[in-house]
Amino acid sequence: MKDRTYELDRAHVFHSWSAQASLTPMVVERAEGSYLWDNDGTKLLDFSSQLVFTNIGHQHPRVVKAIQDQAATLCTIAPQHANAARSEAAHLIAELAPGDLDRVFFTNGGADAVEHAVRMARLHTGRRKVLSRYRSYHGGTQTAINLTGDPRRWPNDVGADGVVHFFGPFLYRSEFHATTEAEECERALAHLEHTIQLEGPDTIAAIILETIPGTAGIMPPPPGYLEGVRALCDRYGIVWIADEVMAGFGRTGTWFALDLYDAVPDLITFAKGVTSGYVPMGGVIISPRIAATFDDRPYPGGLTYSGHPLAAAAAVATIETMKDEKMVEHAAMLGEEVFGPELRAMAERHACVGEVRGVGAFWALDLVADAATKEPLAPYGGSSPAMNEVIAACKKGGMLPFANFNRIHVVPALNITVDEAREGLAALDAALTVGDAHVHSVGDAHAGA
Amino acid sequence: MKDRTYELDRAHVFHSWSAQASLTPMVVERAEGSYLWDNDGTKLLDFSSQLVFTNIGHQHPRVVKAIQDQAATLCTIAPQHANAARSEAAHLIAELAPGDLDRVFFTNGGADAVEHAVRMARLHTGRRKVLSRYRSYHGGTQTAINLTGDPRRWPNDVGADGVVHFFGPFLYRSEFHATTEAEECERALAHLEHTIQLEGPDTIAAIILETIPGTAGIMPPPPGYLEGVRALCDRYGIVWIADEVMAGFGRTGTWFALDLYDAVPDLITFAKGVTSGYVPMGGVIISPRIAATFDDRPYPGGLTYSGHPLAAAAAVATIETMKDEKMVEHAAMLGEEVFGPELRAMAERHACVGEVRGVGAFWALDLVADAATKEPLAPYGGSSPAMNEVIAACKKGGMLPFANFNRIHVVPALNITVDEAREGLAALDAALTVGDAHVHSVGDAHAGA
Repeated sequence: MKDRTYELDRAHVFHSWSAQASLTPMVVERAEGSYLWDNDGTKLLDFSSQLVFTNIGHQHPRVVKAIQDQAATLCTIAPQHANAARSEAAHLIAELAPGDLDRVFFTNGGADAVEHAVRMARLHTGRRKVLSRYRSYHGGTQTAINLTGDPRRWPNDVGADGVVHFFGPFLYRSEFHATTEAEECERALAHLEHTIQLEGPDTIAAIILETIPGTAGIMPPPPGYLEGVRALCDRYGIVWIADEVMAGFGRTGTWFALDLYDAVPDLITFAKGVTSGYVPMGGVIISPRIAATFDDRPYPGGLTYSGHPLAAAAAVATIETMKDEKMVEHAAMLGEEVFGPELRAMAERHACVGEVRGVGAFWALDLVADAATKEPLAPYGGSSPAMNEVIAACKKGGMLPFANFNRIHVVPALNITVDEAREGLAALDAALTVGDAHVHSVGDAHAGA
Repeated sequence: MKDRTYELDRAHVFHSWSAQASLTPMVVERAEGSYLWDNDGTKLLDFSSQLVFTNIGHQHPRVVKAIQDQAATLCTIAPQHANAARSEAAHLIAELAPGDLDRVFFTNGGADAVEHAVRMARLHTGRRKVLSRYRSYHGGTQTAINLTGDPRRWPNDVGADGVVHFFGPFLYRSEFHATTEAEECERALAHLEHTIQLEGPDTIAAIILETIPGTAGIMPPPPGYLEGVRALCDRYGIVWIADEVMAGFGRTGTWFALDLYDAVPDLITFAKGVTSGYVPMGGVIISPRIAATFDDRPYPGGLTYSGHPLAAAAAVATIETMKDEKMVEHAAMLGEEVFGPELRAMAERHACVGEVRGVGAFWALDLVADAATKEPLAPYGGSSPAMNEVIAACKKGGMLPFANFNRIHVVPALNITVDEAREGLAALDAALTVGDAHVHSVGDAHAGA
């Protein structure tokens, strides 16, 4: 419905990642738990968690109250001072962090977390280059977008930021002609080491990896891959930055996606789930050996709202609520008992589902026009009528999906109920039937990216 | 006092722009209006507005309530949707913006606003280079810190970001050997044009300038300078980005510092005062001609919290409160009737005050060890025992100053009362006496930066 909010939006709001003239944004009037309502009163089940950040669902009363209470106490204070909310948030995050990582540099979101993690790695090593995988997203500011391995980098990349992209493990679309996860792992690690050797180990400050790539397709790395990355970093004196902006804070059914593996990075970037997006916040969790680099030498980076009290209070309340309501355990259960089995059953029923990947409340359906060639239902970096029809069918079925290129991601709130999850899965099931109509017979098109 | 907040801070919080081992942050327990209290109960008059952002003072009840109400309604929603708080904020900001600028891209703070403004300029022009002045600050992310013309750039600058620095007008420390403001203006514009010509006009996407440089020293440009910059940009097809992150939203006694001049830029960056820092927010205000570049071509940039509803509601309430309580007019009056005359009188009384500069609630004292040579009381990029004593004396007098190198800035809330302003000025007056003791006789040291 076109109303004042819609008209003012179209007149004055410049939107992210979009051509502005053709936008017709949905006006969201309210939201609660796993549902939201537009200004026509249409109710949608939020299977997107917006941009995969409302991990505790919408308008959780305990976190809302914590924000209101902190607003009444102290909204803001400069980063050079100390305050209770910031200290408690840092303490809780340090407690959750894997290994010995125990110091937190707070930012406003994921992009600046990545910017600062890279800066710390460069100054710690005295090297400049950073390796990053294709099929990744690390944020929208200049360094972060150059690290990104998706098409959003292309218009921003001038090759001047010292970034080199390599291929990560992704068996379904293997770059290494592997046929098993173990083979993919071994070959991907060999490829990474060759890249390090040919780029010059002494020039490489960091390897940055989403622990499980998110928007790029939710590809959990095979067992042993991250352990192998750790070993390579140790061998060549490279800092490992684990980007947990999307995967962290319960999304995977563990506090960090890293908890699914047996390897500890040097730096972790986070954002999104830490406050469930209720107040913008991100940050870098820092190992003692990197923090020590800046014990006596000033860290040359900062921002006005580092450790913002209102955001910190939201983080404390979000973490405590997730703990008390056992949301992380619930997400793990959902993955094992609901999403995993049901999505895999759908893949059996629907010709357009090429692969199902995921864990916890973090799942992707890789949709294809051809099961044999794995030709994607929309080209890499683009959309297609077929995908648009699938997305429209989801919404018509009352479910708001997260979509990217040829994929539908199932990324609801961690505390979605089993009934709500099944409701969304039913809408998805119907939408996939629409996708099936676009599958052509084996071999009549070539495989794409 | 060392308490739980302090101990957790020292154990787990990594602070901006600092060597971490030697930090002893003040624990701020509460704040109200122009005052804050530490955990020993010490009350301080906030002459810093923290990092020059609490423009409406601390804990203004109307803005606190607006945040609480929005928290109860809808904390967050993804940027691709529309929502009432974001639309209203964009509308209000567009109304306030000078000239024809009427579209707002929201970010989390000033640094990412600058990152995106530069990206828009580069894509709009098809050029890469950006000119920026020495003695400036534009933010902490990689592009923003490279644009910055202060020592925080040095450890981050690899000369790869297409930034060229030039000298701006600053009569007190003139690069152009000028003796009047008119001469400084004319020579600074000639210098800028020579720089453009020698860098290659067709390679330059943008000139970015803080309308009035903030942390770098509060140097209002002479009449005609910005008008001259506008003319140069028109002549050479260059985008003018006016950085109003610190100077905007009433600080100068006008809504934007630009309102003091007769020139309209292509892009304006803002943050800080727009929400008084109560919730993190920044943004870019965009002219129709630059917005049109992205009508049909996607803008390749974005962020998860663009137009965050909680931040947008804080912006709406802040702007409306500033209007209803006539804070901008009050700031103008303070500048004309209190800060201007009283600071200039102090300069007469105190040998350590080299120059007083400013407007509204935005003032700098340029402290010197030698009035004739203008040798600064602390070196460019550093501190000194003399400056540390002056700062300590301010705090001992119950006033929290904003200090940078050899300068003390007087940057209180816009709604500070005249009595409170005089209370802070009295503390400053006493502290300057401490500074006077460090002034040495004419000619026994050379002038510094």
